[in-house]
Amino acid sequence: MLPYLDDQAGYGNASSRHEYGRKARQAIDEARQQVAAAVGAAASEVVFTSGGSEANNLFLKGAAAAIKPGPTPLHLAISAVEHPSVREPARELARQGWHLHEVPVDQDGRLSKDEFAQTLACRPRLLSVMLANNETGVLQDVVSLAQQAQPLGCWFHTDAVQAPGKLLLNFRELNTAGVHAMSIAAHKIRGPKGAGALVLDKRLDLRPLIAGGGHEHGLRSGTENVAAIVGFGRACELINANLVQDSAALLALRKQLEQGLVALGAIIFAQTAERLPNTVYFALPGIDGETLVGKLDRAGYAVASGSACSSAQPEASHVLRAMSVADELARGAVRISLGRENTAAQVADFLLVLGDTAFKLRRLTALAG
Amino acid sequence: MLPYLDDQAGYGNASSRHEYGRKARQAIDEARQQVAAAVGAAASEVVFTSGGSEANNLFLKGAAAAIKPGPTPLHLAISAVEHPSVREPARELARQGWHLHEVPVDQDGRLSKDEFAQTLACRPRLLSVMLANNETGVLQDVVSLAQQAQPLGCWFHTDAVQAPGKLLLNFRELNTAGVHAMSIAAHKIRGPKGAGALVLDKRLDLRPLIAGGGHEHGLRSGTENVAAIVGFGRACELINANLVQDSAALLALRKQLEQGLVALGAIIFAQTAERLPNTVYFALPGIDGETLVGKLDRAGYAVASGSACSSAQPEASHVLRAMSVADELARGAVRISLGRENTAAQVADFLLVLGDTAFKLRRLTALAG
Repeated sequence: MLPYLDDQAGYGNASSRHEYGRKARQAIDEARQQVAAAVGAAASEVVFTSGGSEANNLFLKGAAAAIKPGPTPLHLAISAVEHPSVREPARELARQGWHLHEVPVDQDGRLSKDEFAQTLACRPRLLSVMLANNETGVLQDVVSLAQQAQPLGCWFHTDAVQAPGKLLLNFRELNTAGVHAMSIAAHKIRGPKGAGALVLDKRLDLRPLIAGGGHEHGLRSGTENVAAIVGFGRACELINANLVQDSAALLALRKQLEQGLVALGAIIFAQTAERLPNTVYFALPGIDGETLVGKLDRAGYAVASGSACSSAQPEASHVLRAMSVADELARGAVRISLGRENTAAQVADFLLVLGDTAFKLRRLTALAG
Repeated sequence: MLPYLDDQAGYGNASSRHEYGRKARQAIDEARQQVAAAVGAAASEVVFTSGGSEANNLFLKGAAAAIKPGPTPLHLAISAVEHPSVREPARELARQGWHLHEVPVDQDGRLSKDEFAQTLACRPRLLSVMLANNETGVLQDVVSLAQQAQPLGCWFHTDAVQAPGKLLLNFRELNTAGVHAMSIAAHKIRGPKGAGALVLDKRLDLRPLIAGGGHEHGLRSGTENVAAIVGFGRACELINANLVQDSAALLALRKQLEQGLVALGAIIFAQTAERLPNTVYFALPGIDGETLVGKLDRAGYAVASGSACSSAQPEASHVLRAMSVADELARGAVRISLGRENTAAQVADFLLVLGDTAFKLRRLTALAG
């Protein structure tokens, strides 16, 4: 990325025709190839955005704006556990007259197939079901849901932001099953903040969220963030190299971590569901999540309470509520994301620290009681 | 910016509560202060976006979405020379039923006061008039226009992307005159691509363009691009330090350049209008702008044909059309942006190269004729 942050080498507007501009354009084109290759798409299907939230908003608002309202209300459907950047624009559409279905999930966070089938009976024009949940890591069977929806001729989107680098994503396969758009984000795969993409079946008619100079084939205007896009491309080049081995290693660490957590009395959310290999979401009954995160931070462990993306507005996780988790337990929710550098020894150390911290916090509560 | 692109020092999600997250949050808060100080605003009035195009779209679509439609059509007004990122969302609103006024400009690119007064008679709810034009550099008297509009109770926005670093911007003064929102962008002041801001009077009710986790007080969701925001803040710290001297120096270079251009037979667009000190927009009659840009590029000069921001879709500049410039002459349009490093000797050299290039191109045309 660095050359593109430097005045000398690459400080060009990619739409300019002079040499600096052409260099920036070439760098973006190369990154588009890299991103497309990593997720099994064609370069022409990649629309760069400033991140995953923008990509999700672009699909929902952009596809809705391209659909002409008729005499009867239009229906759209999302799962009850979507990221706020899907849920909030969907609710905005509901305020504008769309009929919004939030399809429930079971206690393991998986979409209810019966409820999904019932929703399809309302013939929704837009559907958005995430591939992997940002809190629990639970995977939805997007392929079979899309296949079920395909005969209706609706547009099906999946928020896949959590998936690349942990699962092998193939947009071509998803597209064949009936998925028309997919959001991804650079900073979730060790790329920079400030870049993401909506991968898009070009038959989908979409209005831009950011209109103007006509960049990204008119779907996303604004001078391109060349450095971030270049970083996104390079990050994509690296995600699939050791995916199988890395996933297996992460899964082993996750098992070790979960066994230790259960031994400490923790509840692991969606424990039996198919989940991302790196995500553990748990609560220690009677211990507040925020408090625990603070103590662990001081001990050198960066973990999250609830969902970091919306910690700006802390309230009980809508994901856990949708899974029928009691609010009291949900307030204890802590999320750990394991990385490729983590080791079994670190997990063992962490469990010791956690056990000690939990013991002290429980004693304090007992004394206060 | 570099620490915030690095795993070790600052790779945190600014909404996370662990140490990395808090560092990122502090860096963003500091940048918000720096941006606010540079443009005479309060930090709480700065809403970070991915750039100027997003800021413009956020105002137009966000303010329009917060206004309830009534029995009669709603009016909005923009100038005829706005940047595409104002013009296109305004036209999108027109497709949705808004009545759009594009207020004409005179031959010097200045808003017609009579036409503006007539437009105000229609009681537009939203107004957007740019501070300085991105092609011609022409300044609009935004203060007096806003004062004229203020009694109507409309929301007045100005696209000020071209102004900082060339003019002293004071949002407090503009706000007192009746300007409620102002777009700025980092990459126009030697900051990075990927950051911008809508500076906002908080009385203005605005719906987010990108909804989700509730970042930027709910006005712009999505994990913050910390590095770009930090770079934006630092760039803002530097813009006003030598503004008066730099502007005077640029103006002297511009005069030298324009005298030379006129001697070569060039038409300088909006020559007598009050303009940014660094922008020269001209055409050599009979010489195609694209061709000239290509030749100058090979000679080592990075200049632009028409507007770089929309060179993705080359067509006759709508700005020059609005100024009643004939299409034939407009196709020759070339824009030069002078920088603080440029010298009188460089301008003299450039004029020699340009004269030589123009001579050869004209001879070719004569031979072909």
